[in-house]
Amino acid sequence: MIYIFMSIEKPWTGRFTAPTDAFVEAFTASVSFDQRLYQYDIMGSIAHARMLAHVGVLTEPECTQIVEGLTEIEQEIKREAFEWSIALEDVHMNIESRLTQKIGAVGKKLHTGRSRNDQVATDIRLYLRDEIELIRSELTRLLTALADVAEREAETLMPGFTHLQSAQPTTFGHHLLAWSEMLLRDRLRLQDCRKRLNSMPLGAAALAGTSYPIDRHYAAELLGFESIAENSLDAVSDRDFAIEFTAAAAILMMHLSRFSEELILWSSAQFNFIELSDAFCTGSSIMPQKKNPDVPELVRGKTGRVYGHLTSLLTLMKSQPLAYNKDNQEDKEPLFDTVDTLKGSLRVFADMIPTLQVQRDQMRAAAQRGFSTATDLADYLVRKGVAFRDAHEIVGKAVRHCIDNGCELEALSLELFQEFSPQIEDDVYEILTLDGSINARNHIGGTAPRQVRAAVKRLRGRL
Amino acid sequence: MIYIFMSIEKPWTGRFTAPTDAFVEAFTASVSFDQRLYQYDIMGSIAHARMLAHVGVLTEPECTQIVEGLTEIEQEIKREAFEWSIALEDVHMNIESRLTQKIGAVGKKLHTGRSRNDQVATDIRLYLRDEIELIRSELTRLLTALADVAEREAETLMPGFTHLQSAQPTTFGHHLLAWSEMLLRDRLRLQDCRKRLNSMPLGAAALAGTSYPIDRHYAAELLGFESIAENSLDAVSDRDFAIEFTAAAAILMMHLSRFSEELILWSSAQFNFIELSDAFCTGSSIMPQKKNPDVPELVRGKTGRVYGHLTSLLTLMKSQPLAYNKDNQEDKEPLFDTVDTLKGSLRVFADMIPTLQVQRDQMRAAAQRGFSTATDLADYLVRKGVAFRDAHEIVGKAVRHCIDNGCELEALSLELFQEFSPQIEDDVYEILTLDGSINARNHIGGTAPRQVRAAVKRLRGRL
Amino acid sequence: MIYIFMSIEKPWTGRFTAPTDAFVEAFTASVSFDQRLYQYDIMGSIAHARMLAHVGVLTEPECTQIVEGLTEIEQEIKREAFEWSIALEDVHMNIESRLTQKIGAVGKKLHTGRSRNDQVATDIRLYLRDEIELIRSELTRLLTALADVAEREAETLMPGFTHLQSAQPTTFGHHLLAWSEMLLRDRLRLQDCRKRLNSMPLGAAALAGTSYPIDRHYAAELLGFESIAENSLDAVSDRDFAIEFTAAAAILMMHLSRFSEELILWSSAQFNFIELSDAFCTGSSIMPQKKNPDVPELVRGKTGRVYGHLTSLLTLMKSQPLAYNKDNQEDKEPLFDTVDTLKGSLRVFADMIPTLQVQRDQMRAAAQRGFSTATDLADYLVRKGVAFRDAHEIVGKAVRHCIDNGCELEALSLELFQEFSPQIEDDVYEILTLDGSINARNHIGGTAPRQVRAAVKRLRGRL
Amino acid sequence: MIYIFMSIEKPWTGRFTAPTDAFVEAFTASVSFDQRLYQYDIMGSIAHARMLAHVGVLTEPECTQIVEGLTEIEQEIKREAFEWSIALEDVHMNIESRLTQKIGAVGKKLHTGRSRNDQVATDIRLYLRDEIELIRSELTRLLTALADVAEREAETLMPGFTHLQSAQPTTFGHHLLAWSEMLLRDRLRLQDCRKRLNSMPLGAAALAGTSYPIDRHYAAELLGFESIAENSLDAVSDRDFAIEFTAAAAILMMHLSRFSEELILWSSAQFNFIELSDAFCTGSSIMPQKKNPDVPELVRGKTGRVYGHLTSLLTLMKSQPLAYNKDNQEDKEPLFDTVDTLKGSLRVFADMIPTLQVQRDQMRAAAQRGFSTATDLADYLVRKGVAFRDAHEIVGKAVRHCIDNGCELEALSLELFQEFSPQIEDDVYEILTLDGSINARNHIGGTAPRQVRAAVKRLRGRL
Repeated sequence: MIYIFMSIEKPWTGRFTAPTDAFVEAFTASVSFDQRLYQYDIMGSIAHARMLAHVGVLTEPECTQIVEGLTEIEQEIKREAFEWSIALEDVHMNIESRLTQKIGAVGKKLHTGRSRNDQVATDIRLYLRDEIELIRSELTRLLTALADVAEREAETLMPGFTHLQSAQPTTFGHHLLAWSEMLLRDRLRLQDCRKRLNSMPLGAAALAGTSYPIDRHYAAELLGFESIAENSLDAVSDRDFAIEFTAAAAILMMHLSRFSEELILWSSAQFNFIELSDAFCTGSSIMPQKKNPDVPELVRGKTGRVYGHLTSLLTLMKSQPLAYNKDNQEDKEPLFDTVDTLKGSLRVFADMIPTLQVQRDQMRAAAQRGFSTATDLADYLVRKGVAFRDAHEIVGKAVRHCIDNGCELEALSLELFQEFSPQIEDDVYEILTLDGSINARNHIGGTAPRQVRAAVKRLRGRL
Repeated sequence: MIYIFMSIEKPWTGRFTAPTDAFVEAFTASVSFDQRLYQYDIMGSIAHARMLAHVGVLTEPECTQIVEGLTEIEQEIKREAFEWSIALEDVHMNIESRLTQKIGAVGKKLHTGRSRNDQVATDIRLYLRDEIELIRSELTRLLTALADVAEREAETLMPGFTHLQSAQPTTFGHHLLAWSEMLLRDRLRLQDCRKRLNSMPLGAAALAGTSYPIDRHYAAELLGFESIAENSLDAVSDRDFAIEFTAAAAILMMHLSRFSEELILWSSAQFNFIELSDAFCTGSSIMPQKKNPDVPELVRGKTGRVYGHLTSLLTLMKSQPLAYNKDNQEDKEPLFDTVDTLKGSLRVFADMIPTLQVQRDQMRAAAQRGFSTATDLADYLVRKGVAFRDAHEIVGKAVRHCIDNGCELEALSLELFQEFSPQIEDDVYEILTLDGSINARNHIGGTAPRQVRAAVKRLRGRL
Repeated sequence: MIYIFMSIEKPWTGRFTAPTDAFVEAFTASVSFDQRLYQYDIMGSIAHARMLAHVGVLTEPECTQIVEGLTEIEQEIKREAFEWSIALEDVHMNIESRLTQKIGAVGKKLHTGRSRNDQVATDIRLYLRDEIELIRSELTRLLTALADVAEREAETLMPGFTHLQSAQPTTFGHHLLAWSEMLLRDRLRLQDCRKRLNSMPLGAAALAGTSYPIDRHYAAELLGFESIAENSLDAVSDRDFAIEFTAAAAILMMHLSRFSEELILWSSAQFNFIELSDAFCTGSSIMPQKKNPDVPELVRGKTGRVYGHLTSLLTLMKSQPLAYNKDNQEDKEPLFDTVDTLKGSLRVFADMIPTLQVQRDQMRAAAQRGFSTATDLADYLVRKGVAFRDAHEIVGKAVRHCIDNGCELEALSLELFQEFSPQIEDDVYEILTLDGSINARNHIGGTAPRQVRAAVKRLRGRL
Repeated sequence: MIYIFMSIEKPWTGRFTAPTDAFVEAFTASVSFDQRLYQYDIMGSIAHARMLAHVGVLTEPECTQIVEGLTEIEQEIKREAFEWSIALEDVHMNIESRLTQKIGAVGKKLHTGRSRNDQVATDIRLYLRDEIELIRSELTRLLTALADVAEREAETLMPGFTHLQSAQPTTFGHHLLAWSEMLLRDRLRLQDCRKRLNSMPLGAAALAGTSYPIDRHYAAELLGFESIAENSLDAVSDRDFAIEFTAAAAILMMHLSRFSEELILWSSAQFNFIELSDAFCTGSSIMPQKKNPDVPELVRGKTGRVYGHLTSLLTLMKSQPLAYNKDNQEDKEPLFDTVDTLKGSLRVFADMIPTLQVQRDQMRAAAQRGFSTATDLADYLVRKGVAFRDAHEIVGKAVRHCIDNGCELEALSLELFQEFSPQIEDDVYEILTLDGSINARNHIGGTAPRQVRAAVKRLRGRL
């Protein structure tokens, strides 16, 4: 990237007497980051020029010259042959200035009937619309990976936890589908966000609309917008779409942080439920034996980054009077970094999940400890006629006995069981098995393997 | 509200050896705030009991006893005759314990096939579903008020601002519709949030589902849920709906903060565009002349409160391993306070807007100053064949001349105008009028009065 | 708490024509939460009255009447015999109104030379100054508990973790002192915050000072303020102290969240390093065997609450023009709740830590697994003349060999060791012991038991 | 900046079987941003090498080779001749790898007795310590500018506002000193932060200290640290200093946002109290007459950025188990950007303030409107024996009368005054003048010009 600092005449210096201070120029310029929008800026300008020709404000030859000039500029930028100038402030001025340099006076007509205020609002929406599609496709890739692994592990027993204490047996497949539910909601939220952002601000001009006979519906159609912004003041000052997107991103990152937390826990020697592929781990500069789950740790850390961007954008917009204020230049960096963080995090997860090595024996062994079928015993008693609260009390006492004697429930003799409750009979031992427990939870949403397989099927249908 | 601290036997003490420390008991109890959910807890319990009877886990007489008992308890709470106990931890235990007190052993059967984990998740969703409706109806009331005032003020000239500098003329009606656009998006976001939260967790039990032959679709129908949560682990650990709601609320409060900022600015002696009704202002304890715009200031301040709750909830959920952890008890207070803040702020705005007194003369006078029709002059030059960038430059110089000579553009003689640009002719003076300016912006979304009236009509159609 | 809604004449209604709307009255009143400041309000009023008498604005008998009246009111409030009125807006007006009711016209003289703006700023500072002391004393109690347990456990071996992977052996005592370092920094931050808040706003009046011949130094001395605010506009609009306190609180809660996370991890069946006393755990409504680490989970959750309050306060103050605005009424609830959360969380931790049951055998066994002395082997090679990076590589290969063969390093024969590096000799086995490893880290800040004991001693000296 | 992606052997690959995935490598590498720390990394490494030589772990010639090699590398980086490699992950590995390339096997000895964990913690502290000095010097420059302008404008009358309503007369000089009070507190907070961060983590190694006979005090002296971190686990996992700094920065930016808000308000045509120099404004791409206060608007917007970074860092550290986790790599970007934002914003303000053009006539005229001396009238009545609350009521009625009759208080005849209160005499008219009002507030912190001048003197003494 090449910046040219030059003594350039700004397009708005007519009324000014003193030149912009050099540091101020760099401090207020946005081109170092908003150049990322160049494709969308050019796309928007081409549509604007075509619309102006359509309504007769430009002639067809003028329009053609502009379109060809812009197309060439796009190529120049792509092959990094474009000289960006800080003095020209932003991506819009840089491109327009180059256009005039290339095609002469006709270039000066491009800005007819619009303002940078509606121009930038259009650019960001076009950009974000595309990025949401990319994010959604990474989400789909990750969801597909989860569905595949869940199906494969539909019968892999593991302890289900609440309060990080073994609670009831579940399966690894069922657990994976908890993650996919979260991500499916994220996909829907992004879809709703896309729907709302797909409305065109162009035509609002600075804030009040323009006196040229523009045809906003024509431009909207060229740009694929589903609707046009209903109010010009709102159109240039609205940044809801950026906040809504970042809020959806924050929830998504929260999900990945929970997902990461579990991957890290399960990779510990103490849990040892999974092993991450070496490709997603790194070592230590000092401890030769280390294999660190860097990828989930880093993604967990990146949650803070996206939460922070959400705070930034909300703070930015708080109490701003209408319509456009320079504050809004600060909308881009948090948004761009949120997009990058989401795409990167989802991509690395989608690559990592299929390579998870599952330690099935360790999972099953862990499920067998910790009285995970105690609830099944209580339910058994209820079926024998004990009220649930009384059953709960009885099983609590039996567990207390086992803890004091260092054994599991299935090790108690029938006699001993009957001291706790005479309703307990010989069939209790079947109830206490892990497979008995999970197969019993055989309703929609439950952990029984056949429910997990049915859920995978429904998940695939929703992708 | 009466709290009874008593040495009560907790429903889960079977395995414990030491009693809960008294301070710990108060520190960990949630009944002081979650009692707000009592109606939804009872509604959920009744549906659960009916479902249990439907599948034969309860007998019909048992179910009837339970339903009647719960209905009586609801009445007791409503008339503040219910004794809440800290020792019973939460709203669920308080109600269940009272039920058993009233109807005896049958009460102990209510908790069959469920857990507090799915119970509370169901309660909050039922609560929030109702509150969203109330918020949406306050929003509608405010939107209706905006439509009415906008229609009345469709021709009221005022300066449109960017950077808090007079930019171009607009109308007060048009400005009001910028606010209504924001609020309409808020309404849609709340609707999307409601759609996603209307899925029933009940049946997930603690985390893995239950071994009873429950019929989740039956219960969902009784409770008006559109779908049932697909995965039991996710069902008890998901708090997305609370975050999504709070994020939508934060955006809504951001809108009200911008709205407030402008009301405060415009109420200042310097702007003097509006006067708030005395009912929405207060005085000073020391300065007898003060009339302070307290209501918009307080609402602007309350923005921070809702932003804070969003931060709280996102932080709360970060990195939590599945499924339920005690951390989640902290989800309620931020959510409840967000609901209260939204309802209160919208209500007070809906009451205040119709009473706004508009200082039309002041607005028009302000629009006449500050070269607000300079853009119109530039556009005029373009229509005379000057390229936009050159026209912009010419007008900039004319404005500079006016500033140096302390006059407005319309005060320049035709000769002087022609020194700036020979294309300027006698018809320029019409262009420079405020009415000429606003009527020229006659496209959808533009500030022309007939566009404003058309927009009001469309707005009413969307309510 | 009793609220009286009455048709009361506000103290500032002179210039108003319409009464305050009833809902607006409740919406804008602060008495429901700021009554918590009553003691500080009365303390400030007494000092103000004494100062006014000191400079001759009040007579001595008038001052005595006011002081006696206020003292009685304080007693009324303490014994809950005071009738708070929403119509009187806030704690200040409620108390002043009651004073005039009690002592007649003289009561109306109390507000001479001050405003609610400097009054409330003084009240909150007095309040927070006291609360910081209480928080610091809970911190000291917790630090003392940590010192005691650290001393007792100075030789208790456990694995030190990075990336939740066993890294190097450490001791439980050393780990506890990591927590105490965090808390010591918190104590210093609170002390610095207290130093800055201990400056008196009283005398700033509404915003510009007062025309009475007040003696601010006299009042400051009565109230124990170390300095007086230098600028009246700043004095009434500054809320830095609340934000600085909440930021320090957020860092403190972050520390408790890390502390909690480890307690929860270590209480899991998989780690099983500690057992929390029953008094700090609760059970499950459905799973009879559960013993959940509720207290650390809840404290971890409360981190979000304090982070949220920090966001609230920062948002609140953003972009507020000077001097006082109604927005600032929103400063109290986040501050109060932060204070309560800190005191409660520290108290419950200070109670809990001494009751921790340490599973020393489990900790030592875990330290023995996972190649935790691999770094010691690398260091050993360096001492034998191998460059560190080469040593790191050699040990990495030896660990790889052990993983492939399912053994620990100390199980390798000397011959095998020498295949990896001929510099390895018979003395290597001593290096590989846990005790050898920890005793070798014998420098200030290191994990050697004698360093831990020395650190405990220094810690006690700093309390 | 040149990145070399190469198939490089990582320094920790001994135990690994699969290579790092290329995308994962880029995703997890930090060198693109942490290279900013290179000077501090080299400074720390030189001190570490000297300490190792001091205790005999390195020979003097080895130390000299290392120091010379590192010094050359620093020069290479400065003149942009250094080839940064993503494959080498971070600034530490890049430099160490280049060192070994330059000086051979001795370079591999540098990492003896340390880890990247304590190395990076040391680097960031050294970096931030320097940056705080730079920020403090920009603060001092801005404070000096404020003192100068405040002195010059000590008698410039303007309305003091509360609730953006004219409240009482003040002076522009007094108002400027409100801003300087805020900034002085910021300076103190940064100083306290610097004090706490100036403690050396080096020697903590990975987490438990090292078995080499290091002398931490020696290294600390070389690096100018005032103390050494007391606990190795805490030393590598502590990021309090980054959060404390960012919290202080957030408060500072909040102050600049209030400052900016007022500059923007006052630059509006409606207030017209000041004019910003052209150098700090920009124009519009469409409206030729616009002169926008871009610099304060942008700084106001940048507040969100720093608030966001604070949220990021707090989120990052929440619930992290000890000691180091990869999450912590995310600490740098928010910190770096906070530093840049502070330095830039303070610099541009320090440049801008001396160029402010003050519209003294407009300020005085505004002060004359709006009953700003009403409080003085009430105080006058108190001095005539009326109780303050009664005086407040009387003046309120007089103001109401003036509003109804469209006049100011000083226009009322003595007869009319006496109808409101017989205590009013001929001397009332002097009380109602602006100069009388401000000169009366003649106590420390008050708005009287001689108090303002005295405050400027004290301010200069504190710089």
